[in-house]
Order: sequence, then C-alpha cells, then structure tokens
Amino acid sequence: MEVTRKNFSSVLPEVEKAINEADFLCVDTEFSGLHASSSFHISSLDTPEERYHKLRKGSSDFLVFQVGLCTFCYNEEDKKYEAKPFNFYVFPKPYSRAAPDCRFLCQSSSIDFLASQGFDFNKVFKEGIPFITSTQESELRDLMEERHKQYKQFSSPAFVTPDSGAEAVTTKGPINVPEEHKDFIEGICKSVEEFLEKDGEENLSLPPCNGFVRKLIYQTVRQRFQSGVHLGAKTDEKKQRYIQVTRIKTEDEMKMKEQEKQSAELAELEEAVGFTKVIRLISQSGKLMVGHNMFMDLVHLLNRFCSQLPENYQEFKAMAKCVFPKILDTKLMANTAPCKDLLPSSVLGDLLNHTSCTPFKPPEIVIPENFPQYKLDDSNLHEAAYDAYITGICFTAMSNFLGGLQNPPLPNVLPDATIIKPFTNKLFLMRISDIPYLDLAGDDVLPSRDHVFHVTFPKEWKAPDLYQLFSPFGNVYITWLDDVSAFVSLYKKDQSATVMSTLCKRDTRYKIMTYELFKNGLPDKESR
Amino acid sequence: MEVTRKNFSSVLPEVEKAINEADFLCVDTEFSGLHASSSFHISSLDTPEERYHKLRKGSSDFLVFQVGLCTFCYNEEDKKYEAKPFNFYVFPKPYSRAAPDCRFLCQSSSIDFLASQGFDFNKVFKEGIPFITSTQESELRDLMEERHKQYKQFSSPAFVTPDSGAEAVTTKGPINVPEEHKDFIEGICKSVEEFLEKDGEENLSLPPCNGFVRKLIYQTVRQRFQSGVHLGAKTDEKKQRYIQVTRIKTEDEMKMKEQEKQSAELAELEEAVGFTKVIRLISQSGKLMVGHNMFMDLVHLLNRFCSQLPENYQEFKAMAKCVFPKILDTKLMANTAPCKDLLPSSVLGDLLNHTSCTPFKPPEIVIPENFPQYKLDDSNLHEAAYDAYITGICFTAMSNFLGGLQNPPLPNVLPDATIIKPFTNKLFLMRISDIPYLDLAGDDVLPSRDHVFHVTFPKEWKAPDLYQLFSPFGNVYITWLDDVSAFVSLYKKDQSATVMSTLCKRDTRYKIMTYELFKNGLPDKESR
Ligand SMILES: Nc1nc2c(ncn2[C@@H]2O[C@H](COP(=O)(O)OP(=O)(O)O)[C@@H](O)[C@H]2O)c(=O)[nH]1
Ligand SMILES: Nc1nc2c(ncn2[C@@H]2O[C@H](COP(=O)(O)OP(=O)(O)O)[C@@H](O)[C@H]2O)c(=O)[nH]1
Repeated sequence: MEVTRKNFSSVLPEVEKAINEADFLCVDTEFSGLHASSSFHISSLDTPEERYHKLRKGSSDFLVFQVGLCTFCYNEEDKKYEAKPFNFYVFPKPYSRAAPDCRFLCQSSSIDFLASQGFDFNKVFKEGIPFITSTQESELRDLMEERHKQYKQFSSPAFVTPDSGAEAVTTKGPINVPEEHKDFIEGICKSVEEFLEKDGEENLSLPPCNGFVRKLIYQTVRQRFQSGVHLGAKTDEKKQRYIQVTRIKTEDEMKMKEQEKQSAELAELEEAVGFTKVIRLISQSGKLMVGHNMFMDLVHLLNRFCSQLPENYQEFKAMAKCVFPKILDTKLMANTAPCKDLLPSSVLGDLLNHTSCTPFKPPEIVIPENFPQYKLDDSNLHEAAYDAYITGICFTAMSNFLGGLQNPPLPNVLPDATIIKPFTNKLFLMRISDIPYLDLAGDDVLPSRDHVFHVTFPKEWKAPDLYQLFSPFGNVYITWLDDVSAFVSLYKKDQSATVMSTLCKRDTRYKIMTYELFKNGLPDKESR
Repeated sequence: MEVTRKNFSSVLPEVEKAINEADFLCVDTEFSGLHASSSFHISSLDTPEERYHKLRKGSSDFLVFQVGLCTFCYNEEDKKYEAKPFNFYVFPKPYSRAAPDCRFLCQSSSIDFLASQGFDFNKVFKEGIPFITSTQESELRDLMEERHKQYKQFSSPAFVTPDSGAEAVTTKGPINVPEEHKDFIEGICKSVEEFLEKDGEENLSLPPCNGFVRKLIYQTVRQRFQSGVHLGAKTDEKKQRYIQVTRIKTEDEMKMKEQEKQSAELAELEEAVGFTKVIRLISQSGKLMVGHNMFMDLVHLLNRFCSQLPENYQEFKAMAKCVFPKILDTKLMANTAPCKDLLPSSVLGDLLNHTSCTPFKPPEIVIPENFPQYKLDDSNLHEAAYDAYITGICFTAMSNFLGGLQNPPLPNVLPDATIIKPFTNKLFLMRISDIPYLDLAGDDVLPSRDHVFHVTFPKEWKAPDLYQLFSPFGNVYITWLDDVSAFVSLYKKDQSATVMSTLCKRDTRYKIMTYELFKNGLPDKESR
C-alpha cells in the first residue's frame, strides 16, 4: 500500500493494527546516496567498529526517501502467512517557518540508479510524509511550552525584556521606524483604525511585506491599538507572508485567540512528527524486525527518526538495542552454514529465487485485497515495500529449512524458535571475510590478524611488486588502502612469524609493520 | 523549448544559431538550495567581498537543476524582438564508471518550494543533460591520453610495472587465485577455450561477477590466452558488470579493437561534457548576458560548468569577466534611479507587471512556432526559461524608457547603447542598503561605516535594550549577528563621533567597538 502525506493520517491506524497482530516485521529503505566521499569506502579488513564509524561519518548526511514495511502474520488454521506491505514515501518538508530546514546530501550515481529503477522522485518531494527525529520533537516541544508559558505572564512576549514588567512592553523605548518606511506604516495604522471603526469583517489582511517591515508593523500597531487587536502572520497562495489583524473586544477574547493559536501550534508539531510515529510503533511492539543486509538501513532509521548517531560505538549498540530490541539480518542467515552451502548468491533477488525451491521451504502467503498483489518476478525489485516483502519470504524459507533439519523436524518456524536465536541482533558485514557479523547484543568476535601486514611503498608499485616482495611466503591477498599503502594478507598463516624478520631489512623503498602495530599506532596518528 | 538528455544533441545546433544571431541573451537557473547553514545568512552590512565568500562557502555544494536561456534578436524591419526560450534540465549523471560521481546538497525548504511550483524532479534525475566542468574535462582527457599512450607501449597496461618490460606482463609472479574461486576461474578458462576452438560467434559473454573476481579473470585469461583474446567489461540490463571475450586473430586485429575502444571512450567523454557546451557557446559569443538578481546564478554557472570557484575574490572577478565578458543585472537597473522611483517592487513577477505600462516601454515580441508561446500571466513563473524570457522583457522595457529620456529620445535601445554601459558588469547586492552593487570590472565602492558600531551583550538582551543604550544618539538600526552580538547603525550619522567616548565606560555587561576596528580585528580572530 502506497502511503504519502495525503493518506498518512488515515492509514496510520491500519499500520498500527498490522504491526500489533504481526509475528514479525520486515523493513527496507531507499536512500539518496552511499558514501559522502571515497575515503569512507569499506575495506575487507575493517573491524565492526571501524565499519560503524565509516557509515556514521560517510552516510548519515544522505536522506531516506522511501521506507518499506511488510508485516507477516501466521494463520495457524490455514498454515498461511498474511503479508501487508506498506510503501512509505518520506520527506522532511519544514512544517513551519520555525521548523528545522534539513540539508541533505545526494550522490549522483545513487540518484541515477533509483531513476533507472523507475523511482518516483516527484512523489517523494511533493507528497512525502514529513518527519522530525524524536530529539528534535522534544526540543521543539520545550521551546513551544516556554513560549506559551511566557505568554501567560506577558500578553505580548516578543517585546519583553526579561528584567522589565508587562508594563514595559508597550511603553519602553521609541519605535524606530526608518524614514523610508514611515509613510507605509502610517498607512497601515490608518487601515487598522478604519477596520476597527466599522463593525464588519472579523479579520483584516494587511498587504504582504518583508520580515523587517512586518516587525515594524507588529511594534507600531501593538503600541497604538494595544489589546484591541490580535496580530498573526499568515502565508498567502503566492507563499508571501502577511499579517492578519483580528478584532478583539475583551481580555477573555484575547486569551481565547491565543489559546486557539497555541492549540494549532501543538497540532502542527504533532503532524510534523509524521513518519517517526511508525518507527515508534515498530519500536514499542518489540517484534522481530527483519532486514536484508540491514546495517545501512538501521543506521538511517536511527539517525533520521530517533536521534543523531552517537560517536561512541558502544552507545550506538545500546541505542540500536533500545530502539529495536530484536533484529535479524537475512544476509547473515544466507551466509551462514548450512544455508550458505546451498546458496550461490545472497543478493536479495537471487536469494528469493534460490530459496523458492527445495530444500528451502518458502511459505504460502496471502496479501489482503487492499494491498498490492506483488508478483515474485523482479518487476518491483528496489521498491522498498517489495524488498521488505521478499525479505520476509526468504526469512521464512530459510527458517523452515533450518527447522526441517531439527530432530524432530519443526513444521513452521516462528521468530521465537530456538534455532532463530543465534541470528538475532547480529548485522551482516559486507565484504569482511574473517568477521561474520557485528554483534549488537554483545562484544564483537575479533579474529587474529597476525597474518596481515601493513606495507608502505612507492606510488609506482603495482600488485606484482607486492607479490614479488612476499613471494617467500606463498600466496598473498592485497587490500589497497591508497596508492602508497596496502594490507597484505598471507594465505599460509603459519608463515606469519618469519615475515617481519625476513622483510624488515634496510630496503628504504618500502616500510612494513604488523597489522596490530599499525592499528595501535593509529590513535596517535589521528591526534597529531 | 524543453531540452533534456533525449534531444540535447539534436537541439544544440539550434541553440548555437540562436545565440549567434541574438542581440542579447537572458539566463536564469533553478537550484537545490540556498544556504548550507544559517551561518552563511546574508547580512545588510556585508561587503561585496564578504558576500562573495558567503556564497562560495554556503552555496556551491548545491546543484543547478534547470538553466533557462532566452535569446533576443531585434528585427529592424518590423521593430519586434524574436525571443527563443530554451529550458535545459541538467543532471551530473556519471557518464561512466570512471567518471566523477558528484555529491550535492539539497535544502528541504528549497526543494519544497520547487515542488510547490510544480517542478518536475523526475525529468531532472531521469532525463537531465549531463555535464562536467571544463577543469574536469581536461583532467579526464589527460588521464585518457596517458592511458592510450601507455597502451601503445604495452599491449596490456593494467598489469605492467613501470620498470618492467612488456614481457613481464604475462609472466611475472604467480596469479593468486584464492582457493574458493579456483573452480570458478577454471570453469571460465574452459569456456574461453571452447569458444576459441569453435569458429562460431565473435563474442563470448562471461557470467556477471564482482570486481575482484573480474580481476582474477582478467589476470588468468590474459596469461593463458595471451594475444588470442581481447577482454572488455560491459554492463548488462540488470546493471551487473560482466566480461566480454572477443576472438583476436592477428596483432593488427588487436590494435584495431583497441583503437575502436579508444574512439568510443573519446566519444563518451565528448558526450559527458554535455550542457557545458552551451555555457561555452554563450561565453564565446561575447554577447551581453542579462539576468535578474543574478549573483547566485553567476556563482552556480561558473562553479558547475567552468571550474571550482576561486578562494580569492579578485580571482573570482577575473574568472567571471573572462567567462562572461558582458553581464547585466535587471534588479540593479530596477533599483537605480530613475527606474527605482517608479517601481514599488523589483521582485521579478512584480517588475514585469510594473514595466508593462507607461512610462516603461515593453517591446513587441514574437516567439517562433516551435517554442512555447508563453503568456505573461505568472503561470510559468519560476520555470527557468520563462524567468529568462520575462527578464529580457523587463530589460528592454526599462532600457527603452531610459532611451526615451535622452535628448533626442532613442526609439529602441540595444545593448551597445551608451546608456546601458553604467549597468554592465555590476551585480545587484540583496539587502545591502549602502552599497548598490558588486563591480566585476573594477574596484568596489565601499562607503564609510563610521556610524556603525559592533556591540557584544548578554543573551537576555532584546532590541529595546539596545535602543535604550543608544538613546542619546537618536534612532538606530540593529543588524543581529547572533544572540550575543549585533551591529548598531545610527540614523543621525553626525552623532557618530561621540558614541565611543560616551558608551565606552566601565559597564561590563556590554562591549562596544567601531565597525572598522571590528573588521580589522577579524583576520586575527579567524587565524586563532
Ligand atoms: N600504487 C598502486 N595503487 C593502487 C593499485 N591498485 C589500486 N591502488 C590504490 O588503491 C585504491 C583502492 O583500489 P581498489 O580496491 O582496486 O579500488 P576501488 O574499489 O575502486 O576503490 C585505489 O584508489 C588506488 O589508490 C596499484 O596497482 N598500484
Ligand atoms: N539576544 C537577542 N538575539 C536576537 C534577537 N533577535 C534576533 N537575535 C539573534 O540574531 C539572529 C538573526 O536574527 P534576525 O536577523 O531577526 O533573523 P533571521 O533572518 O531569521 O536570521 C537570530 O538567530 C538570533 O540569534 C533578540 O531580540 N535578542
């Protein structure tokens, strides 16, 4: 189901119901770019912590354009899953002039990729559901309450100096209307006077003008007409700002006007929270959230809808676990034995094909009428809700396969099954060969890298020079860092002990050190 | 006329013809944002140089989405202008995998504004004309020539160490195929062997695989089959990369293949230059380029299509004059007497309305059939080509009005008229009241700011506190810098001399200094 600004509030109860009745949830996101610069490229020798820092620094300025949520609910009677795929278009349209005006990064190649997949950018920018992070929401709420409280003390807070009483508001200091604006402001005052004299219309719309002139109008009109009028800024159809003057007869009427304005402000903030409400529903449900290769998705969901990503890696883990207490990454499942041995590729589209036949056990699925009846034919691939949908299918197909290997075999594996436990709260790490996952719920398992060496060399060197250098130790694998340095890993790990003594001779063209020394040296380097 | 990637190369000759026959050109751009952060907000006391630095740092990460060009050609016979409005959608789609992958910033409020104007983002991202800066073009061209030259020396440049001969290429060092890829690579070699034995198809497409495996294939296949095959990477319809093997019978055939590849690369680069060609045509024509409030447009045009903006302000002026030798800003014309006194607003839409009747003299315009027949009714406002079109109308209406004031009156004022000269190569400066323009062709005129004072004060202070402080000197104008500092300008400039001696007493709550001292102190501050 497509969800935009237009139908968000009417669909939200249905989303809530779907989440609450689900056995598990699947998510996927589409975003505006991958890496802010090539210095954040991932490397096969990253540690989980280094990978986190690369994602935090290199990816968090990109924007999430689309979030797919697919809920899966198992029906014991007909042994089928009911799947409800929601496709949310999101965009941080500033909800008011005081609201945060988000700046975000785009990467041409990513935008081009989305474009080639038929992605509808107009829908994002014109109908995207707004959102602010939870942190922004509390800040804005505090500011608003502060303002409303202040209003209770003084009737016209904008012109109050903290150490002056309400009295001072309208009397202190001259109103400094520059010469060139005097005629205009006088004209305005005259039209307000006429408006107040005639007992006709309730409101008077002043001509649009810039912020400075509006400030002059506020000051002058409030001083002249005191509590007889209420002033408020409005935006006309041409997006120009103007002031609306409202007739006020009694002090109570003034209070009511202000009360109305305050309620409207609160409602506006409520609306501005927007898509973040869906993330809160997911979070509060405590249900298993499944994604495919979901590290980047997780980082974006936290950063855009909860709060800025913490600098500290342990804090990130704590935050992730607190917001999404149970997650599962199907790419990790697919890359772990026994599934791994049966799957030539774990790219999502391929995974769906491979897990759709024996020995895997794809589930039977029903999609309710008011949702898109997705065909499993790739035509919707890279639409977030479709990707979330097939992630759920792959998850159950693999889970049921694992269940079938049990003694006695489990017919239908649900998220609370013991065989699912080993996969929960672990994130797959792309292209890292010796560390299978990032463990959100515990300490990461870090393998020995005693067979890895850091080498610095002349720009002119190519792979054969490094192969040559390491030829006494057999095959090596090169991980380029830049054009004058690389990690070199031995295939024959038992040769590691002799590398330093053999290669650390006085050839000044290259410099070699152990992986450990290089890593432990880094903090110094960075603080230099 | 709408111009996208689809019709760009066929329309380009028409654009060239229109530019070359025109009397003057009008331009306008639409971009993805205004200020990277609020610290780049413009202030009424900016100097032209400060304003440039704010634009350079705060705006150049935004992208140009649309460029409007409208050419105006005067027909002496029927006394009418022929206007040709071109609306170019532009987007820096990376033209190849080696091409720059641009990162750009967007500002939510600007995107939302464009969206509300019906802007078609899908057209930009899916059909935008590509472009690279002239600087990027030369760099890429140099790199390519380097590569092509290298190829002439060695047949397989990728595996050559500079200090080893062509011989070394295929023999040096073992090919390090990791255990897990051995079977796959052997299978590939077998299929290449079979392909070479049968004399059927000219090409063999290998299965798609990742970059590392492709590297292994290159190495192994080239070593085994030497000059019998030519290998090249291709992209299939699923955007996956694969290697295409081509049968090579003779050394000459190999050379021809490579020659073909090189020509294709050159043609690709030529295409990648894209929209930058239009900017070059404008530049080479030397014609007057008219824009409305065009400082930001100029900055974007230079930065995106020529080269990165220089840090040095004088270099910026030199670069601007070199690329666009003659520019004119209609907002400056509208804000200069005698036009100024007749125009209540110089916002483009308003300006068109005000200059469409006496005493202004709007031109008669003909738009050729194959161009959009724009109505002057605001419905296309903020479409770049329409804005360029009405800028041209305002320009001629004001020019002809000025011409009518001459003795004897000039009937139709063309860009080379003497009365136009005072406006050329000057940029209007938004919201700066005491400096009318930035002079691209000379030194800026900087007024005395002896009546301006910099004040630092407690956060709690509001405007009345500052009015109070300066009350001995009459009316003041406040320019907020942040919540603890502001510039305060006296209306009565003759009072300036006594301010420092009167206010520099030992009240520790505020600190005051002259504008000049504050400015000259700044460089020290910044280098702290
Ligand atoms: N000196 C040298 N540097 C290289 C060579 N190959 C790659 N590099 C460097 O290593 C970086 C990473 O290369 P690689 O992992 O192949 O590519 P990427 O995935 O395109 O970033 C490159 O940007 C180069 O700076 C080489 O043969 N010699
Ligand atoms: N202390 C103090 N700071 C102010 C006041 N009004 C504005 N400022 C500061 O000056 C900055 C610029 O204000 P202004 O020119 O009104 O607004 P802008 O166009 O929205 O940036 C604000 O962000 C505040 O930090 C005030 O009354 N008291």
